[in-house]
Amino acid sequence: LNGGLPSFSAHALPGLPLIAPGDDLTALILVAAEQAGLTLRDGDVLVVTSKVVSKAEGCIVDLRTVEPSERAHQLAAETDKDPRVVELVLRESRMISRQRRGVLVVEHRLGFVSANAGIDQSNLDADDEHVLLLPVDPDASARAIRVGIQEALGVNVGVVISDSHGRPFRLGNVGVAIGVAGVPPLRDLRGDRDLYGRELRISVQGFADQVASAANLLSGEGAEGLPVVLLRGLRFEWSDGQAADAYRPADEDLYR
Amino acid sequence: LNGGLPSFSAHALPGLPLIAPGDDLTALILVAAEQAGLTLRDGDVLVVTSKVVSKAEGCIVDLRTVEPSERAHQLAAETDKDPRVVELVLRESRMISRQRRGVLVVEHRLGFVSANAGIDQSNLDADDEHVLLLPVDPDASARAIRVGIQEALGVNVGVVISDSHGRPFRLGNVGVAIGVAGVPPLRDLRGDRDLYGRELRISVQGFADQVASAANLLSGEGAEGLPVVLLRGLRFEWSDGQAADAYRPADEDLYR
Repeated sequence: LNGGLPSFSAHALPGLPLIAPGDDLTALILVAAEQAGLTLRDGDVLVVTSKVVSKAEGCIVDLRTVEPSERAHQLAAETDKDPRVVELVLRESRMISRQRRGVLVVEHRLGFVSANAGIDQSNLDADDEHVLLLPVDPDASARAIRVGIQEALGVNVGVVISDSHGRPFRLGNVGVAIGVAGVPPLRDLRGDRDLYGRELRISVQGFADQVASAANLLSGEGAEGLPVVLLRGLRFEWSDGQAADAYRPADEDLYR
Repeated sequence: LNGGLPSFSAHALPGLPLIAPGDDLTALILVAAEQAGLTLRDGDVLVVTSKVVSKAEGCIVDLRTVEPSERAHQLAAETDKDPRVVELVLRESRMISRQRRGVLVVEHRLGFVSANAGIDQSNLDADDEHVLLLPVDPDASARAIRVGIQEALGVNVGVVISDSHGRPFRLGNVGVAIGVAGVPPLRDLRGDRDLYGRELRISVQGFADQVASAANLLSGEGAEGLPVVLLRGLRFEWSDGQAADAYRPADEDLYR
């Protein structure tokens, strides 16, 4: 459809097996892409949900092994949450941003702000006693996939590790980037001119976050389990930035 | 490319002229789509930036006609902004959320929270004395385009009117929906089950916002002027919701 127009396409990769600790995620992505008839190309971007990265990397905690601190017990009572989960949230975070019954929003050790430090209790196993932490270093996870694909196929792809976050002001979760490799976290349009030659005022675009949101339109369908989305045709310059480049510093944040 | 996989594509519509007050935006979109060889189909979603809607609807104010109130003068001094622009921000908003030198974040009369009430000083004319307000009723603007296309072509498309917002916690602006027609503001996945049969916990997706963010990857390239993006292949159920369905009520917002 109109190859000359600015455009991109997004394709969910089907056929990935349930991921288990120790799995080679890059190898599984390569097999799934090949089985789907998708030949990866230079400039493609793969968006991978943090959930499957965490599983592959074994970022799984058995709640029965977690001893909540005094503070975790108190915070759990105040927020009506499992003290063992609250203990993990505290271990994973730098500070509490907001708390209220049923709500615990923190600044994650990685630098972003999210509910429950991104700890995930779904899709693990049926006994409900295991939870997933976010990957230890999602930028490194993204780089490993990027390098693995470069080595296997000789193609230069970008990778985004995505999570799904709630937001102030607006309802509904949206995809955000918590790890990047090759893909610019932000696209700085400063210096570009508008149609009348004036410098653009709204000048920095949340590029990787929007890539994650676009992918979430396909992968976010929860029950269907589509953790990897291929985006093709995006225009961007290769970047060695990291996801944290798009995290607003605390002292410049009027809301944290 | 693999018609059977869950996928969608996004296409910027080129060839739109500079929009002026009184222009029939729907007619111009139809011409641009036809000239680009894009035949609109049932289920397509058009994302239109609020900027061109405001221009077509004549939501333009000559700052030389604006008499700032006492309060606007004071707030302008505190925030280092043009008192006439601050006067318009106050008229367009319900309350101030945060202020600081160079920053004025308000709850817009439409219900969302954004900087400067979405008032836009770029891309108007070179003398810099005119500004654009947001459309009076962006849901109605979206419906008018949807109905106009239905009447002209007999196809059932969704329409999103988008704006570009900054965010707490994260840097970079992202596309959000401030008007919708046919497209669900939120997709409620509650009741869906995860792979182990448990109800999903993260269950409401910011669908229209993610659609706007996906489109912004193409239209957000400021200087290039691509205000209309066609998304094809998205899966959603037709909705009679309005954009405000995705605005978090003030009394449920821990950050406003």
